Amino acid sequence: MKNDVNRQFRLKSRPVGRIKTSDFDLVEAPIPVPGDGEALVRTLYLSLDPTNRIWMSDMDQYMPPVEIGAVMRGGGIGVVVKSNSSAYQVGDHVSGLTGWQDYTIAGEKPELRMGVIPKGLPVPLTAMMGACGMTGLTAYFGLLEIGQPKAGDTVLVSAAAGAVGSVVGQIAKIKGCRAVGIAGGPDKCRHLIEKLGFDAAVDYKRPDWKEQLAAATPDGIDVNFENVGGEIMEAVMARMNLFSRMPLCGMISGYNTDQPMRADFSPILMRRIQIRGFIITDFMAKFAEGSSQLAQWVAEGKLHHDETIVEGLEEAPTAVNRLFDGQNMGKLIVKVADPARL
Amino acid sequence: MKNDVNRQFRLKSRPVGRIKTSDFDLVEAPIPVPGDGEALVRTLYLSLDPTNRIWMSDMDQYMPPVEIGAVMRGGGIGVVVKSNSSAYQVGDHVSGLTGWQDYTIAGEKPELRMGVIPKGLPVPLTAMMGACGMTGLTAYFGLLEIGQPKAGDTVLVSAAAGAVGSVVGQIAKIKGCRAVGIAGGPDKCRHLIEKLGFDAAVDYKRPDWKEQLAAATPDGIDVNFENVGGEIMEAVMARMNLFSRMPLCGMISGYNTDQPMRADFSPILMRRIQIRGFIITDFMAKFAEGSSQLAQWVAEGKLHHDETIVEGLEEAPTAVNRLFDGQNMGKLIVKVADPARL
Repeated sequence: MKNDVNRQFRLKSRPVGRIKTSDFDLVEAPIPVPGDGEALVRTLYLSLDPTNRIWMSDMDQYMPPVEIGAVMRGGGIGVVVKSNSSAYQVGDHVSGLTGWQDYTIAGEKPELRMGVIPKGLPVPLTAMMGACGMTGLTAYFGLLEIGQPKAGDTVLVSAAAGAVGSVVGQIAKIKGCRAVGIAGGPDKCRHLIEKLGFDAAVDYKRPDWKEQLAAATPDGIDVNFENVGGEIMEAVMARMNLFSRMPLCGMISGYNTDQPMRADFSPILMRRIQIRGFIITDFMAKFAEGSSQLAQWVAEGKLHHDETIVEGLEEAPTAVNRLFDGQNMGKLIVKVADPARL
Repeated sequence: MKNDVNRQFRLKSRPVGRIKTSDFDLVEAPIPVPGDGEALVRTLYLSLDPTNRIWMSDMDQYMPPVEIGAVMRGGGIGVVVKSNSSAYQVGDHVSGLTGWQDYTIAGEKPELRMGVIPKGLPVPLTAMMGACGMTGLTAYFGLLEIGQPKAGDTVLVSAAAGAVGSVVGQIAKIKGCRAVGIAGGPDKCRHLIEKLGFDAAVDYKRPDWKEQLAAATPDGIDVNFENVGGEIMEAVMARMNLFSRMPLCGMISGYNTDQPMRADFSPILMRRIQIRGFIITDFMAKFAEGSSQLAQWVAEGKLHHDETIVEGLEEAPTAVNRLFDGQNMGKLIVKVADPARL
């Protein structure tokens, strides 16, 4: 890896179906020079998330799509290597939208602002993107604020072995609920129960998954934390109880298609289900509260931080497909530079 | 009409598609005899509602379907003609599930309980099924409790010339909102604006209805009171604003089919829409508050009670189809017996 250039993945074309490496240009740009009130940040870790796929498309979405020719948008953690701002000290770890590149500029203006990660945290740095970062906060606020689980409720989460789902199930257990996860394959299902403490796991790759789902939710479902959409969402909604709640976090099964993500609305009416779509930034005002609670649970051993780390920025466009192929467990991270070698 | 028998419509077969008279047996049963703590009620008016169609089917629903051979379930208003209960005086007007029949039994047990309508109301008796009854309450609580409209919001309602929709739009105006209705045909659309005070009306029977919808909602839609489902619901949801609310009252476009009522979920996620299905009985604890407010608005001339009255119990199975054919305006009522002639 050369240290004197800024490698960048720029979006060349909007992917059709699965993301291809050829949808990006990998270019070597000059390392940017921070101006007054700005700092230069070396990317250490990239967070790969289903929303990357949304940003690559021009579907109706919650932020502007990434423009063709622009650096691919992505969350990450970096280290400050130069600074002309009192807000950032050299050596500080910062988190924010680093983009899929080696270097980025942090600044004091809102659109350049990155968050400085406190020093001496009792959790690994990568957990600040996962269980204690955006991912964990997504699980925390989606489940607690929208799902409103009560002790004894059955909480179901799809994509349960994924970064968000694995935290949702664990918080449900902390809150005294029955946690049921849907995941693909026996390894993931065993992991949910043996490592993460879920009460039951449903393997959607088995032909009898609907029977498994029924057996795992004998009292129906009070909270459905929805991550996948499609056929799985419909089967889950068919088992939701009267006055149940459904935080709609994502519908990953539809992101590789251009089709409307249609599903049956009748259970919403007949079972008086409450659904609310959300994006984690909706809860920004409460991030500090959520992060500190999540970090405490991790430090106490109540919340396990799962992660899969892929080495090398150049792997990002290939690795992101793991989220859609069902190959990933826990938080999917690309290590762009080794913090220990800087 | 004979006064010594109890004509009853009994469900013979579950309708396939449109309701047919042949889906019912019209039988002449003996007039029931009230026991201790019971009263005999002569049906005066039947309320015809989209939910009748749901009850005839065996789709997943919020009450048990009407059993084959049982008297068709339906709301109505009657008059007490015999009483063995201090809860009901001869001459009292009562409302409740009279069924599609001439006579029914009211009682003190919860499952036989009917509501006694106070005497001397400043509104016509039929308004107690419409704007001041279940229909008005459906509009009132669905809009105010779930829709949470603020002054200046754009409130859209589908089936706007129907019993519920016409009240929704008028309450929206009372609350200082922009009221936009979707209805079929120029007469209904003119009625919404000229008689009911809506700000705009969209005629879904015109080929340019989507352009009309866009023009009528220049600032998007903050509350969508959903009555119809299907293609209209999808077009409306595509114009809903960030953090908008959607009381899901019904999806009448799907009731004559056996198909799942599928629609696109992605706006819920991207626009963070909050949807809640409801049935008016969910708000039973607050009925007195709602009814008295609605009656006051009617008495003050702020809320217009629209109704269409069809003469004769025997017309019920034919008349109910008007709800699905788009032929009805306002509350659809069957007059079973004339209160003035009893």
